[in-house]
Amino acid sequence: MNAQRDYDTLVSRGLKLDLTRGKPSPRQLDLADAMLTLPTSYVARDGMDGRNYGNLQGLAELRELFGPVLQVPAEQLVVGGNSSLTMMHDTVVHALLSPVPGAPVRWVEAGEITFLCPVPGYDRHFTICERFGIKMVAVPMNADGPDMDVVERLVAEDASVKGMWCVPKYSNPSGIVYGDETVRRLASMRTAAPDFRIFWDNAYAVHHLTEDHAEIADLLALSASHGNADRVFVYGSTSKVTLAGSGVSFFGSSPANVAWFLANTAKQSIGPDKINQLRHVEFLRDGAGVAAHMRKHAELIGPKFAVVDQILSKELGELATWTSPKGGYFITLEVPNARRVVELAKNAGIALTPAGATHPYGDDPSDRFIRIAPTYPSLDELEQAMHGLVICVRAAT
Amino acid sequence: MNAQRDYDTLVSRGLKLDLTRGKPSPRQLDLADAMLTLPTSYVARDGMDGRNYGNLQGLAELRELFGPVLQVPAEQLVVGGNSSLTMMHDTVVHALLSPVPGAPVRWVEAGEITFLCPVPGYDRHFTICERFGIKMVAVPMNADGPDMDVVERLVAEDASVKGMWCVPKYSNPSGIVYGDETVRRLASMRTAAPDFRIFWDNAYAVHHLTEDHAEIADLLALSASHGNADRVFVYGSTSKVTLAGSGVSFFGSSPANVAWFLANTAKQSIGPDKINQLRHVEFLRDGAGVAAHMRKHAELIGPKFAVVDQILSKELGELATWTSPKGGYFITLEVPNARRVVELAKNAGIALTPAGATHPYGDDPSDRFIRIAPTYPSLDELEQAMHGLVICVRAAT
Repeated sequence: MNAQRDYDTLVSRGLKLDLTRGKPSPRQLDLADAMLTLPTSYVARDGMDGRNYGNLQGLAELRELFGPVLQVPAEQLVVGGNSSLTMMHDTVVHALLSPVPGAPVRWVEAGEITFLCPVPGYDRHFTICERFGIKMVAVPMNADGPDMDVVERLVAEDASVKGMWCVPKYSNPSGIVYGDETVRRLASMRTAAPDFRIFWDNAYAVHHLTEDHAEIADLLALSASHGNADRVFVYGSTSKVTLAGSGVSFFGSSPANVAWFLANTAKQSIGPDKINQLRHVEFLRDGAGVAAHMRKHAELIGPKFAVVDQILSKELGELATWTSPKGGYFITLEVPNARRVVELAKNAGIALTPAGATHPYGDDPSDRFIRIAPTYPSLDELEQAMHGLVICVRAAT
Repeated sequence: MNAQRDYDTLVSRGLKLDLTRGKPSPRQLDLADAMLTLPTSYVARDGMDGRNYGNLQGLAELRELFGPVLQVPAEQLVVGGNSSLTMMHDTVVHALLSPVPGAPVRWVEAGEITFLCPVPGYDRHFTICERFGIKMVAVPMNADGPDMDVVERLVAEDASVKGMWCVPKYSNPSGIVYGDETVRRLASMRTAAPDFRIFWDNAYAVHHLTEDHAEIADLLALSASHGNADRVFVYGSTSKVTLAGSGVSFFGSSPANVAWFLANTAKQSIGPDKINQLRHVEFLRDGAGVAAHMRKHAELIGPKFAVVDQILSKELGELATWTSPKGGYFITLEVPNARRVVELAKNAGIALTPAGATHPYGDDPSDRFIRIAPTYPSLDELEQAMHGLVICVRAAT
């Protein structure tokens, strides 16, 4: 049997390759090296000394720069620390311990709480729910976002459904972009819970791989126009724009939600790192600066996504399906026996994200989804890993 | 009446001065200006690329630098973001939502929770308790720390007492230093609650004003030697060492507590800002570097503390008492009718921290304590403000 022989040869090569990490490569990080000697001035536009305490909401010039990127008015945007994951986690904490606007009680007193989780999705979203005992219900994804018939039914029927995770643009891990009709239905749907919130993790807002830039409808504005002004929490960060560990994060929402968020944050912090905010403003300058910088990222990682697509097309053909995203950080490969494929790959020295990680509780009942992260390895390592992965898929079939 | 006439004259001058803010002055921040163009290298000692995700616990070289400062073994220290207040707040959140080692249940399920609050104390500690409905019980402070007879009785009798706030060195706002016997009793006392924790906010560990450096006993080690290894959460930061908004913070504790803290933090973050950690290591270098840097701070703010002391001695004499701290950021003035004094000062254009802020719920039943923050104003402004304050004290008496 050829497939088994090929696999044995693969194992004998003793590879050590890693396709797990949705991390920028060192060459991508090099693009922001000028930041290491910024800012040239510690004075904010309003004259404030950026070195001292204060300014909980973050510098206006940075909020104005990223407001249009995240489709949030600058005055409704909050700049946080180096991680939007922290802002998402902490929003859930705030909702558990201090009632969100419109909530009859704190979520910790609300009995069972359910979040809808479009699948495949982002495992770190699911981990936040698991930590706090929030029940997760998987919702299938279509080509234009979550299956809205299912979503509308669940939120209308079940008052325990208080949250929903969404990565609306170049979704993690499928690369899917939410269609305008999906966004309109999210904004207008009737929910049984008065304190239902959409966690709109716009992590890849400017992370295009091609010149065909995806645009999504403005959920925050649409929700307000449908009488659901407080429905949306928007998140974003520069982790994959500037430096992965040293970026800035954003939270955006309605005026009432922002006031709630800041009132809680005021108990937790005397203000964010404004020197890093000034560093970002100096380095990125404006929307055009962000776009130009992201083009350099695309030049580095576009060829990696292309290589994955080419190898899968040429060597797997009908055996599998996969996404060909125009942005973001991941490709989703759908194969039979995903768990077995990941195990075979592991034994051949190719690390993949655990099968099931794309689903709540690590449980993909279809056993089909594998997340491929092509950005971190070099092109040569990536090619070797993909050729190896193909052999594993064939051996598992 | 002279006092009233003096006060009327003061009001007529239309001053605009501020003694509220425990903030470094711009000249103190200038001391760290070299940091704005650091680090020169983004590579950590272990070869890790500091620009990328990861390393939840923080760089070993920075933990080794601050371990001795905070009396915590480097392997039991965690480096956080720009605010130790955030680490304290989040520790309480973690304990509310995920049981601390030894806790029968999460604090959110534990019924009434009580924290002991030595007074005068730090209002932001109290605010954290208030946010979460944690009952606060004031404990009087003696010259060598909290009244340990009271503390020992309360923790032994009442199993709802699960926490205690301490600023053990140059305490906020009295400047008091905990004596060795106080620390030994904190380490060894019997507590009714198995999950009792001391929040040891060592905010002013290296913030000496004179060459007579206070040292405190090692509560973490002493607690372990008394069989109470998990009793202590240690906090510190460089907010008043390097840059107030752009420092790094620390959490230190027993191995079990650190594992608990990191397991929770892993749901919240993919890692701290290691570029800022490298910046700190390059700038401060080692313990001697920290000490030399802190001497420059003392040169700038020592004269300010001296001026407050001189003016109070000369002009108030027997009318009041006040502390003469050898470190930290505050002087506590004790006067009759503190609320009235603060109100008179406000009407004369001199902003003081609200009377009562030194006590839980903003309630100082003795109406005596006023916190003076001399670091931020210029020496000239400070002198004007203190002369004015003296007039207000006289007018209120």
